[in-house]
Amino acid sequence: MAKKDEGSRVRDALRVGAELPDPGSTPVGPGKKAKALAKFEGAGELLSGLQEALYAEGVGGGRRSVLLVLQGMDTSGKGGTVSHVLGLVNPMGVHYAAFKKPTAAERRHHYLWRIRKQLPTPGQIGVFDRSHYEDILVPRVTGLLTAAERRRRYGEINAFEQELTDTGTTVVKVFLHISPEEQLRRLKARLETPEKRWKYNPGDLEARSHWPAYQEAYADIFKKTSTAHAPWYVVPADHKWYRNWAVAELLSETLTELKPEFPEPDYDVAEELAKLKGVGVPS
Amino acid sequence: MAKKDEGSRVRDALRVGAELPDPGSTPVGPGKKAKALAKFEGAGELLSGLQEALYAEGVGGGRRSVLLVLQGMDTSGKGGTVSHVLGLVNPMGVHYAAFKKPTAAERRHHYLWRIRKQLPTPGQIGVFDRSHYEDILVPRVTGLLTAAERRRRYGEINAFEQELTDTGTTVVKVFLHISPEEQLRRLKARLETPEKRWKYNPGDLEARSHWPAYQEAYADIFKKTSTAHAPWYVVPADHKWYRNWAVAELLSETLTELKPEFPEPDYDVAEELAKLKGVGVPS
Repeated sequence: MAKKDEGSRVRDALRVGAELPDPGSTPVGPGKKAKALAKFEGAGELLSGLQEALYAEGVGGGRRSVLLVLQGMDTSGKGGTVSHVLGLVNPMGVHYAAFKKPTAAERRHHYLWRIRKQLPTPGQIGVFDRSHYEDILVPRVTGLLTAAERRRRYGEINAFEQELTDTGTTVVKVFLHISPEEQLRRLKARLETPEKRWKYNPGDLEARSHWPAYQEAYADIFKKTSTAHAPWYVVPADHKWYRNWAVAELLSETLTELKPEFPEPDYDVAEELAKLKGVGVPS
Repeated sequence: MAKKDEGSRVRDALRVGAELPDPGSTPVGPGKKAKALAKFEGAGELLSGLQEALYAEGVGGGRRSVLLVLQGMDTSGKGGTVSHVLGLVNPMGVHYAAFKKPTAAERRHHYLWRIRKQLPTPGQIGVFDRSHYEDILVPRVTGLLTAAERRRRYGEINAFEQELTDTGTTVVKVFLHISPEEQLRRLKARLETPEKRWKYNPGDLEARSHWPAYQEAYADIFKKTSTAHAPWYVVPADHKWYRNWAVAELLSETLTELKPEFPEPDYDVAEELAKLKGVGVPS
């Protein structure tokens, strides 16, 4: 029990509560950039080793996987998190999916249809860059979702995530929490740097103008969908170095608790070694 | 023209010819481990920058993508190549697919069915760990493919790759060439190291016993499917440091030639900057 507690220090500290932390704060772990970068490297080695074991477990017939759900306002660093944190592990074991505005074809299906198609397979770490939460968030803010429909979707999403948990997928939901001031700086940087202009979208300002409505919608989402089996974590994301460290740590803690194991061989090792001894070099 | 030649030094040197290079040789580039590792790091930065531009181009409406096809005998390092070389770039832009023995469901379809489902989307680098070439290789060696069916498949594959090229996907086909002596060492290492045992499969020895037949089948594949639009490259793979450097270089040269470009904004930059000036901090 004590051990489990120790292994969930960052998760416990970042689990969503009644009040969100300041986006520029560092509620747990390193409070300075240099220290965070150093710790991040260490976390990388640990994470990479755990991911290999999870992958191996999947190859050996294991059913478990991890799904990292990334949500946040524009420029909150979803892409940067994928690049830096998932960049630490073997690409063989990562399945990345971005969910943009649904296409006409996607809209003809239930909103979970396109989500299900991108779920991680056993042994994988799946990453959702935006997710099914957009299907509550956006229509709610734009006034297209009735309260009844919203309640229905909350129920569906909780049941969906329960199903994932029951079938071996650990869901890690992360809200990258930035301040409107930091967003303004990042939007400006995107416009001022030619190689960053492709990341800018005039629609970002429209979304920004609904900032309080989005925060309110997120608060409601946390209240209704932060369940015991799939809690929300809030990562203060004004500092990229803190964000990267924190998400790496959330994944490391999760994988450490899963204790993925290299599968036992389903063959006789001694027998195979003996066979190898007798094997010649083909000519 | 001279410039293009210079930009294809590694591709020219490794393009398959009548005779395969020695698996322990280093026909082009660094001949020593330390130098290869140093050069590999440099290649990483270049590759990562090019990949970001390709990805951005895709977001901006571009149609181009790259498909890296990895083939080779067991233990030749397909997985290691993915981990090391694709590990250099942003996971957002990588789509990895492994093709194992077809399932019963897959066998009910044309062999290209499951392949098509895993093609890279615009802006992505796709990686095939084994590929449609297994559908000639394995049935040929096990005697299940008639000469007529083999000819038909060669035709289909060449047409398929022509279609990919025509629709913007640059196909880079790499044969990781190891010696049977090195394979024996690696199989032994897999058996002797508990965390590597999951990579070992008793069937590997069965495949190994057909080594000459596999080499012959590969030689035929190179002859029939190394086309101008999708040539085969042979990477000597007994040295992992050389293999990683060479594949990174093949990708870098390919992407350098593609010259992916950050898309021009489809909005007015000055206008958006002016809008940002007027934007307040929402409360």
